[in-house]
Amino acid sequence: MNKLADKKIVIVGLGLIGGSIAHGIADRNICTNVWAVGRNEKVLEEAKKAGVITGFSTDLEVACKDADLIVLAVPGLTVEPILKKLANLDLNKAVITDAASVKRSTVIAAENAFGSVPANLVPGHPIAGSEQSGFSAAKTNLYENKKVILTPLDHTSPDALAMVSELWQKLGANVLQMSVAEHDEVLAATSHLPHLLAYALVDTLSQQGQSQDIFRYAAGGFRDFTRIASSDPEMWRDIFLANGKATVKILDSFTDELQQLRQALLDGDDETLMSTFVRAKKSRDNFNDSRS
Amino acid sequence: MNKLADKKIVIVGLGLIGGSIAHGIADRNICTNVWAVGRNEKVLEEAKKAGVITGFSTDLEVACKDADLIVLAVPGLTVEPILKKLANLDLNKAVITDAASVKRSTVIAAENAFGSVPANLVPGHPIAGSEQSGFSAAKTNLYENKKVILTPLDHTSPDALAMVSELWQKLGANVLQMSVAEHDEVLAATSHLPHLLAYALVDTLSQQGQSQDIFRYAAGGFRDFTRIASSDPEMWRDIFLANGKATVKILDSFTDELQQLRQALLDGDDETLMSTFVRAKKSRDNFNDSRS
Repeated sequence: MNKLADKKIVIVGLGLIGGSIAHGIADRNICTNVWAVGRNEKVLEEAKKAGVITGFSTDLEVACKDADLIVLAVPGLTVEPILKKLANLDLNKAVITDAASVKRSTVIAAENAFGSVPANLVPGHPIAGSEQSGFSAAKTNLYENKKVILTPLDHTSPDALAMVSELWQKLGANVLQMSVAEHDEVLAATSHLPHLLAYALVDTLSQQGQSQDIFRYAAGGFRDFTRIASSDPEMWRDIFLANGKATVKILDSFTDELQQLRQALLDGDDETLMSTFVRAKKSRDNFNDSRS
Repeated sequence: MNKLADKKIVIVGLGLIGGSIAHGIADRNICTNVWAVGRNEKVLEEAKKAGVITGFSTDLEVACKDADLIVLAVPGLTVEPILKKLANLDLNKAVITDAASVKRSTVIAAENAFGSVPANLVPGHPIAGSEQSGFSAAKTNLYENKKVILTPLDHTSPDALAMVSELWQKLGANVLQMSVAEHDEVLAATSHLPHLLAYALVDTLSQQGQSQDIFRYAAGGFRDFTRIASSDPEMWRDIFLANGKATVKILDSFTDELQQLRQALLDGDDETLMSTFVRAKKSRDNFNDSRS
C-alpha cells in the first residue's frame, strides 16, 4: 500500500504533534508533497529549510489548495474554528483528520462547522506526547510503536479511514479503532484523571507551610509521579473542558476508593490496606508485562 | 574523618536497603569489619563469598558481639522486636540507627524496648529505594547523591550522631537533620500520599468494566504516574499503619482541592482549572530545576 506517495498532505499546526508528523513523513519518505500551516512564519521557514516540509503558508486556504489529506494538529479548542474555515473552502473531498485528545469535541465541532460530520472526516488521537511542546520538541520517532486511536462514525468513508490509517501506520504507530464514547472514557481513566491528580497534588503541596522543605526532600518516586504536572496548562484546561463529564465519572469512583483507604488509615485496618495494595500491584505488574 | 575504618559495623537485614549499604561500604573501603544478620542463610553466604560482608550470623547476639555500629535495615514493624532483643544484650554502648520510613514509630519502638530512647540511638531514613526489593536488587550506589534524614532527639549523643552521619556521607549521601514530627509530615506529603494515590488509582481502574482496554491504551505518562503502585504491599501497609495520621492530614487537604477541581469540571470553570494548572506547573518546574 503506497497511496500517500504522490498525494498532498497538509499539516495544520506545526507544534510537537504536527512537527513530529512532518519529521516522520520526511525521514520515512512517506510523501514528497507536505505543506504546513501555522501562525509562526519563522518556524515554518525553519522547517522548510531543514527539508521537513516542502511548502508552507500562514493562510489555510493557500496551503490547503489541492490537498488530499489535511491533518489538524492544533489545540483542542482550535479544531472547531479551523473546521469552520475549511467548511468555506472548496476542498474537493480532501480527507480530514485530527489529533485532539477528546473525540466527542471533534464530532461536535464538525457538526457545528459542516452541519453534520462529513464522511471524509476521520477523528483520531495519537496516544503519544510529552510534557514538552512546540516544534523544537518534535521528533521523527514520536509515534513509533505508539497507539493511535481512530474513532470513525457509521457513515465515515472507508477510503478516508484507510488513508488516515496508512499515514499513522507508516509513521510506525499501531492503529486501533473504537467508538467516540469509548475513547473518551478510556482516556478519562488513563490520562485525564492522572493529570488532574498530579496537578492537584503538586498544587496542594506547594500551598503547605513547609512547601520548600516538602519539595526539597521529595525523591525519585515523587518525581515520576508528578512529571505530568509539568504539562502545558492551556492544553489540559481545554481537554478537561471537553471531557469533564467522563473525567468526573471516573474521578468519583477513585474518590470512593480513596475514602475507603482513608477510613482504613484511621482504623489501622491492615487487611483493607494490604488487599488493596496487593490487587493494585498485581494489575500494575501485569500492565508492565503486557508492554515489554 | 575516618573513624569507621577500624570499627565493627553490623547490618541487620540484608535486603535492598541493607544490601546496598554493605555493597557501598565494601566498594568504598569504608570499613573492613562488616557483619550482616538475616533470616536467609543462603543470601548471607552469597554476600560473604562475594566480599560484600566479612561475617554473618542468623543470630542477632552472635553478630552484634563487639559491634560499634548496628544498622537496622528491616521492615518498619520489625524494628521494635529487634530493639527488644538488642535491649537484652550487652552492647557496650554500640551506636544503633535504623532506616525505617516513619520516625515516630522508631521512637515509640525504642521507648517500648528500652523504657526511653537511648542516647546512642539515632533514628534515620535514607530517601532512596525503588519498587524492587531484596538483596538481589541492592546496588553499591543506591545512596549516592540521595538525601538521608536523621532525626536525633534532644538527648541524642553527638558522638553517635557523628558516627551515623559519617557512614551515610561516606556512602555518598547528603545528610540532613530535622525533628521526628517534621520528618513524618514531609514524608507523608511527598512519599506516602503519592503511593496511596497510585495504589488507589490502579485499583480503581482495574475494577472498571473495560479494564483490559483501559490498561491497553495507557501511555507513558500513566506508566510513570503509576510505577510506585508496583511497590512492595507489605512494606507500604506497615508505613501507612505507622504514619496514618499524618497521611490523612495531607490527604484531606488534597481531597479538598480535588473537590474544587471536580466542581470546576462540572461548571466548565476554565479560570479555576487554568490557574491551578499554571501554579502546579510552576512548582513542578521549579522542583525540577532545583534537582538538576
